[in-house]
Order: sequence, then C-alpha cells, then structure tokens
Amino acid sequence: MKNETIDIAIIGGGVSGVYSAWKLKQKYPAKKIVVFEGWDHIGGRLLSVTPPNIPDMVAELGGMRILENAQPLIVGLLKDLNAALPKNQQIELYDFPVDEPQNIAYLRGVYLRLADYTTHPDKVPYKLAFLEKGNSPGGVIVNAIEQIVPGITNPKLTEEQRRKMAQEASFAGTPLYKQGFWNVLYRVISGEAYQYGMDAGGYNSTLANWNAADAIPWFLTDFGITPEYKGFKKGFQEVPKTLAAFFEKLGGEIRLNTKLDSFIKVKNQFHLTFEKQTVIADSIILAMPRRSLDLLQPTCPELQRIENLIGSVTPRPLFKLFTTYANPWWLSAGYTNEAGTFVPVQSGRSVTDMPVRQTYYWPKNDGSPATSGESMLLASYDDGNNIGFWDGLRPRRSEAWEKGLKLTKIDNPFEGEAAGKNTKLTWFQYKAPVPMVMEVARQLQVMHGLSHTPIVKNAAFRDWGQDPFGGGWNSWNIGVKSWEVREKITKPLDDSNMYICGEAYSDAQGWVEGALQTADIMLSKFKLK
Amino acid sequence: MKNETIDIAIIGGGVSGVYSAWKLKQKYPAKKIVVFEGWDHIGGRLLSVTPPNIPDMVAELGGMRILENAQPLIVGLLKDLNAALPKNQQIELYDFPVDEPQNIAYLRGVYLRLADYTTHPDKVPYKLAFLEKGNSPGGVIVNAIEQIVPGITNPKLTEEQRRKMAQEASFAGTPLYKQGFWNVLYRVISGEAYQYGMDAGGYNSTLANWNAADAIPWFLTDFGITPEYKGFKKGFQEVPKTLAAFFEKLGGEIRLNTKLDSFIKVKNQFHLTFEKQTVIADSIILAMPRRSLDLLQPTCPELQRIENLIGSVTPRPLFKLFTTYANPWWLSAGYTNEAGTFVPVQSGRSVTDMPVRQTYYWPKNDGSPATSGESMLLASYDDGNNIGFWDGLRPRRSEAWEKGLKLTKIDNPFEGEAAGKNTKLTWFQYKAPVPMVMEVARQLQVMHGLSHTPIVKNAAFRDWGQDPFGGGWNSWNIGVKSWEVREKITKPLDDSNMYICGEAYSDAQGWVEGALQTADIMLSKFKLK
Repeated sequence: MKNETIDIAIIGGGVSGVYSAWKLKQKYPAKKIVVFEGWDHIGGRLLSVTPPNIPDMVAELGGMRILENAQPLIVGLLKDLNAALPKNQQIELYDFPVDEPQNIAYLRGVYLRLADYTTHPDKVPYKLAFLEKGNSPGGVIVNAIEQIVPGITNPKLTEEQRRKMAQEASFAGTPLYKQGFWNVLYRVISGEAYQYGMDAGGYNSTLANWNAADAIPWFLTDFGITPEYKGFKKGFQEVPKTLAAFFEKLGGEIRLNTKLDSFIKVKNQFHLTFEKQTVIADSIILAMPRRSLDLLQPTCPELQRIENLIGSVTPRPLFKLFTTYANPWWLSAGYTNEAGTFVPVQSGRSVTDMPVRQTYYWPKNDGSPATSGESMLLASYDDGNNIGFWDGLRPRRSEAWEKGLKLTKIDNPFEGEAAGKNTKLTWFQYKAPVPMVMEVARQLQVMHGLSHTPIVKNAAFRDWGQDPFGGGWNSWNIGVKSWEVREKITKPLDDSNMYICGEAYSDAQGWVEGALQTADIMLSKFKLK
Repeated sequence: MKNETIDIAIIGGGVSGVYSAWKLKQKYPAKKIVVFEGWDHIGGRLLSVTPPNIPDMVAELGGMRILENAQPLIVGLLKDLNAALPKNQQIELYDFPVDEPQNIAYLRGVYLRLADYTTHPDKVPYKLAFLEKGNSPGGVIVNAIEQIVPGITNPKLTEEQRRKMAQEASFAGTPLYKQGFWNVLYRVISGEAYQYGMDAGGYNSTLANWNAADAIPWFLTDFGITPEYKGFKKGFQEVPKTLAAFFEKLGGEIRLNTKLDSFIKVKNQFHLTFEKQTVIADSIILAMPRRSLDLLQPTCPELQRIENLIGSVTPRPLFKLFTTYANPWWLSAGYTNEAGTFVPVQSGRSVTDMPVRQTYYWPKNDGSPATSGESMLLASYDDGNNIGFWDGLRPRRSEAWEKGLKLTKIDNPFEGEAAGKNTKLTWFQYKAPVPMVMEVARQLQVMHGLSHTPIVKNAAFRDWGQDPFGGGWNSWNIGVKSWEVREKITKPLDDSNMYICGEAYSDAQGWVEGALQTADIMLSKFKLK
C-alpha cells in the first residue's frame, strides 16, 4: 500500500494548531493541510463543558479567561472571527469577577475577608516587616519587584517596555535572566512576606523559582496593572472550535483520535507514524505542550537534536474541580458590614492555604452571580504540591496490581462513564471520584466557617499535569534567554521543515495569547518546501 | 573483535551492588563477576569527604547514619565486616546527635527553642487544636497515626508487626495502601497541625502524599520508638568501599567510569553496551536508583516489560550543603536558662521553614561537639520544593546558550575544580558556588538571630535530585502493594536472568538497611544460568 502524502502536517488540535491551520489554509488553499489530534475533540487545554441542569453556566475545565486590556492577539482574533461569523453565532465575552472585598481568605487557621489585607493588617497571620504590612499579597510582590528592577512597575510602561527592562536588568551584579524569581524575591522581602504572597495569592507555581526576567513582566501583566478579565459566554473552547470549523470550510482536514507515535525525516520529508496510518508530509508543525514533545523525543531524532531548546521550559501542573449544588449555599457565608448590611459572598474568588487553594463562585453566562437554584463552584483551582494531594484521591490502578501484578499500562486518567452513555453532556467524561468530592466538600466547609454544606450534586475535574499535557502552563527555566529561544524554536533547524509553536515557548505562558504569539512567529517563518 | 563474555554483570557500585557482588563471589568463586560503575568511585549515595583543615570531621554528602536499634541488616553486616577486618581498620560508630532542647526552631518568623514545643506551646505559631497543642512535630504525627491505625504506635510491637498492621488496615472503609499519607493525615488533624509537622519536622517529602501503608511504619521507625542514631567515624562510604575491597580480594572485578548505555537480551544472554566496550553476560543485576532505570528504559526492551514495577516508586530529591568556618560561631546562639546558666547551641539539629530547613552542628569523629577551632556545619539539609530554591543558585548552562544557542547537553552537574587539582581532597569536587554559599550564610544568620556570622571558608554540596540519581530516596506510590512488588521486582521476569535491587524498592526506603534488604531478597532468588 502506498503511503499517503500531504503538504503540511499539524500535530495538535489546541488553539495554536487550529489557528495555524486556518492561517496556512488561507494562504495556500491548494495545499493539503491536515491537523492530527490525539484526543477525541478539538481544543487542547481549552475544555468547556456544560454542567447537568445548569444550562446558563459553562465549566471551564481548562483556560477560562483573557486579559482584554493586555492581550491584543486574542482580542484581534476574536474581532476577526466575529466579523466572519453570522450574527447569531458571535463569540461574546462577559466580565469575569475575581477578588471581591467580602470574599474569604482562610489562612493559617484564621478567617479573614479579602478587605482585611489592607484594612485590618494586624489580623493577617504572617509576621510581615513594617513596610510589608497592609499590602495585598499581589501588592507585596509588586513592591518587591520594584526593588529588584527599579522603575519597572511604573504603570505608564507598555508590556514590551517592561519586558525589555527585565531582559536587560541585573540584580546584585548578575543578569536577571540567570536568576530565579524565588531567589531574588527572597533577597528583598522576608520569608513570611514570600509565604503570604504565595498562600494568599492562590498559586504556588507563579512564585516558584523560574526565570526572573520572564517571571517579573509576566507577574506584572496580571497584577501590575488593573486587569480586565473577560470570560466566554459559550465557553473558551468555542474559539478553537470556530477556528477548526473555518479551516475545514476552506477544505482543510482534521483527524481526531489520531495520536502521533513518532516521526522521522527521510530525504527532506517527514514520515509520521500513527497507530493506524503512516503519512508522509513535506512540512511538520508541532503545536504541542512541552511534555508531549518529551514523550516523542526518544523515538524522534529531529527532536533529539533540539533537546536543549525543548528543555528550556518546565511544565507546571494545574488542577480544576467543579461542583454543582441545588442552590448557592455560599451566599450565607457573607458578613454584616459596619453599616449593618449583610453582604453575601456571591462572585469572584476566595482563597485558602489548604489544598483547595482557590474557590470561584462561578458566574452565569452573562457574568452575573447565581442567587438561587442550581449553581456551580470552581471548587478547587490549585497547582504545585497540591496536585499530589488530589491525585491521591483518584482510584488507583489497583485492579491490575491485584491481578498478580499484571504488567499493563496505567489506567485511562478519566474516571466515570463515557460521554453520552447516560447523558449527552461531556461533563460526565470528566466526572470526579467520590473520595475527591467528599474531601473538597470538607475543606470548603472549613474555609467557609460553616457547620454544614449541602450535598454535591455533580462534580467534574481535570488534572492537567497528566500526560500528554504535563502541565497547565509552562515556565521559562533560569539561565535561558527566552526572547532568543522563542524565536529559535519556532523553526529550530535550518535544514529541516519542522516548526514548533504553543503557549510553552511564549512571553505569555499559560495564556492563549502566548499560543497565538508563537504561532504568529512560526507563521512568519513558514515556507513551503 | 570478539566480545568479552562474563557470568554476572552488576550495574551500580552503590552499597547494594558491591554487597551483592561480594556475596555472589563468595558463593561462586570461579565465576567471572564484574561491577560496572558510571561514576569515578564506589559508594553511590554514600559519599564521605574530608573538609579542608578539619581532619577530625567527615562531611557526609550522602547517607549519614543508621538506626542501631531498628536496622538489623546493617548492624549484622558491620559485625561481619569488622570480624574480617584487621584491628586497626575496624569500622567504628559514634552516637549521632539530633534534637537538643536548646536548639533553634525559627518558624513563621518566630524564634523558638526546641524545648518550647512542649514547655511553651503558646509560643508555637501554629493554630493547633486543643489536643494537638503541646506536642513536638513528631508527636503530632504519631498521634495522628494512632487515630488512623489504632494500636500501631504501641511500643511493644515489632517493626514487622507494625508493617503487617498497616498492610492489612483500612481507614474510612478503604485499604490504607490505596490511600495517600497526606490525605489520611488531613482527615484526622488540622491543616495547621500538618503544616507544623512538616515545617518543624524538617522534611517536606516524608509527609507528602505517598503510600500510607508504607509511610506509617516508615515514620514510626524513626519517630515512634526512641531512635538510636549512629554515625561513622571514617564516614559511611567506608562500608561500600570495604565491601568492594573484599570483593576484589576474592578476584572480583570493578570497572569505574563505565556507564551502561543500554542492554538487550539475545538468546538468553545480555548484551551490554558501554561507551568503550560491549560485554555479554549470562546474568545482569541492576543495583541502581529508579531514575537510572528510567533513563535506560527507552533503549532496553527488558525494562519496558516491567515499566509498571519500576514506576511503583517516586524519587524524592534531597540536598545537602556543608560549610566550614574558623570557629564554631553557633555556640553563642545558645540561651540563658531559668537557672541562669548559659547553654550553648553546639550539637544536633536546628530547624526553620526557610529553604535551609535543617542545620546540623556537625560532630567530630567521636561524636563530641566542636568547641573551638575550625568547625563544620551541615548548613542545609532539605528536600521537596526547597531543592528548586538552591538549584537556582547554581551557575547555569549559560555559556552554551550565549554562543548562539549551541545545541549541547547540559553541563556537568559538578561545579568547581576537579578532585586533586589544587588539593588531594575530594571535597573540592563538590565545591558549592559563591551565590549559593552567600544565600545559605544569610539564612543561617537570620535563623540564628545574629547580626553577623563569620565568613564561610569552604563549602561543598550535593543535589541528589540530579541525574542519574533522581532522588536521595524513593517512596512507594499510592495503590501499590509494596510488599508484593518488593518480592516481584528482585527477579521481575520468569524468562529472564535479570535482577533488581536497591533502597528504592524496599521497606526502609532512603536507608542502607533498605538496600541490604532487597539485595538479600534478590540473592535468595539468584540462580546461575
């Protein structure tokens, strides 16, 4: 049998893959361009599912928002897509609520409201230095950053200017890009301030020891300006799905459930091996997370040649668990303010140092809070070590072990029934196991200071640390000049028509903005063979 | 050229490798047995170096002690070795000091003495529940364990009885071996008590989410009984060195600097490929850490067949940094007790939640404290996330990056001059870089509450998370019946003369006792082809 021959093979149906496919198909309408996706759907780490009985909410198991005032690429793309979409299919946004003053911070066994950070600094259970006191966790870190790179927190600077400053900055006599974010923070703030920034900030990995020259502008994009977060009314996955549909409309082809096993270059062509097919392509675009590249590397000589480039970032696990209830019980966890008015907890985020870490009172599709009826929480959004806590509450590969240590692969990471078995909702494909849900419920009860929380009706989760993703986002390693690697890796080998793109090797790691950035760089270098 | 053919190839010159070699050579004196070691010396994770100008101390960069009253295999081995060694070469032990009441606990920015845990519970900056208060960090965890497996902390039980209880126990309706240690601890103690156990206990990884049925007896061996720690007068590495010498004396052969690249089985023999030689062996014994097996796996079909067995444990990084000074400045960090007597800090361990975590005031070879003259600290003994902090202070592969992103392998992990260049001391092979030493000095100053600490004269470190070790110890994964895997993995394939041993797959992970345990199991199964 003759092997199938195509012009461009794009590996990965995440946003950078389908965006690149759509752009290339517009430029080269006569060329045969195929997107190969290992999973059964398009979207990658954008995964929007509808919870049972709550038609006006979308659970974002993956990416959930954009920064409208700081991310021009995704904003521009949405404009382009909407210009091409019919009126009734527009991709619409809503204001995504984050920190509200009445929301809860349960830290070191102490109950606070977020407002207490600045209004009641003595309640905050961290032994902060005089100048650190009275700041929000983000404020403590921004102040530290200003000490590390004086002037960089000036709100008049553009993102690009901040980035350039960080790239060229030295701290204590050493270029910043050769230093770790944790290391430099520890030089200018107390250990307690660092711990406060991490615990109350909600994330472990953002303050981890990654490249300080990247971490500083990255952190300021989120916290240095007033961020304008937007969510997607029909879910963020609508964006890659739309891109995929546009690509197919132009004659492009998408093959789902088609995982790349390996590829080799033979006489300037790529021979791609999938489980059920072999394809020969003139060009190959790897639109995959770092971990997926790692998994291919042992059998792909072209990837072995660029081991150092691939290894210039570290995958960072993220975990998300959504729970639904008969009603929004969290409203009652509000408080009576000084004017004697009861202020309910109803939207945005609460935080704790327990493994649940961050809880979002999930908004309706129009951004408004649920005030009655079936409602949903992003019960836990966590990272770092906490991933291991929740991982312990998943059913294990015990059956294989109990059957005399049968030497099989680890179970499919997805528990629960297959999509469409009992219901049409993909939600059930990501159903959370009972012990995990019980422990989340227990911690939610503690952090909300309630003696009882109602029963969880449904729960879905994703641990993005699982293969083939390896992480929810990737961070630049210390010592790497990211601005050079970013350019280099998009077409890493002069003698090879292999291209790479994706969030991992961008300025905006963990954001769709970053996926689009590297895709654009890659596309500017792309040449037909 | 004809390939060399031998009877038994032992891969790895750590303690389990040379112990097995010695035992097999005694049993099969006529057989050709060769130990292949990738590094330039025998010992693996036992690495004892003499600090410059301090001839009466040995820096244990790797394993540093045994539990004399709980580890019969190493005690028995020492007896056997000493019976065979001449009088002036006996392997001698000393009492290894650990927690002293006057030692420091600097936690959450609060200065405590270890005695305060029980004598001044209100000073301890953790919001503990009533029943948790007034306990040492180890005590809190032991009490929690008693709630999880009632009766198991009874000091009359033997190690074996405790292990059996944990293997058969269920907690909250699920077998303990299917649960994570962190998960079950979180059910019976407060989040603050767990954090106290971790911060004040000194280790992050021991309370991590590993197999609860293994973690519980493992923890009790160290903390449930009164441990009798012993150090080695001439360093722990003396043990594998002596074993290697005995093996060679019987005619066995050891090849250093001989790293195994891959092996395959051909017609019931193993073809081993090294950089400069190929060897055919009838039997192969892999006496290596899990991470080393991982690194071999992509090119070794025999290891791919047992992927699940190899993957049943998780490598846990450990970091050790020793510093030397003109005098033992820490003596002055003591305190004046209620009787008006000044009690110096002079031996054992202090602890903090900063990345240095644990500091040992290193004893002389006879176990007595240094009271004047050049002295040494195990300045930092840490694990978990803290490894990333110290890793950030190592020189990066920046040169390669700066030379136009040259696609080379990462630098040799060892900084500093090669052994023997400026001095005969191997210490310099493990020399710590200046930024790392400066940061350690800064944290030591803070944790000791001093405005000044004298200059560091010399510093040496090892990060055992580096390849090919991957970790200082390994922990059993949740869901694994370790007592079955332990037996199975020593001879994993019925049709193959491949054997595996080492600390990783034992009951006493992280201890030489564990390495000897699996070696003994392996030896009991070993059959000549």
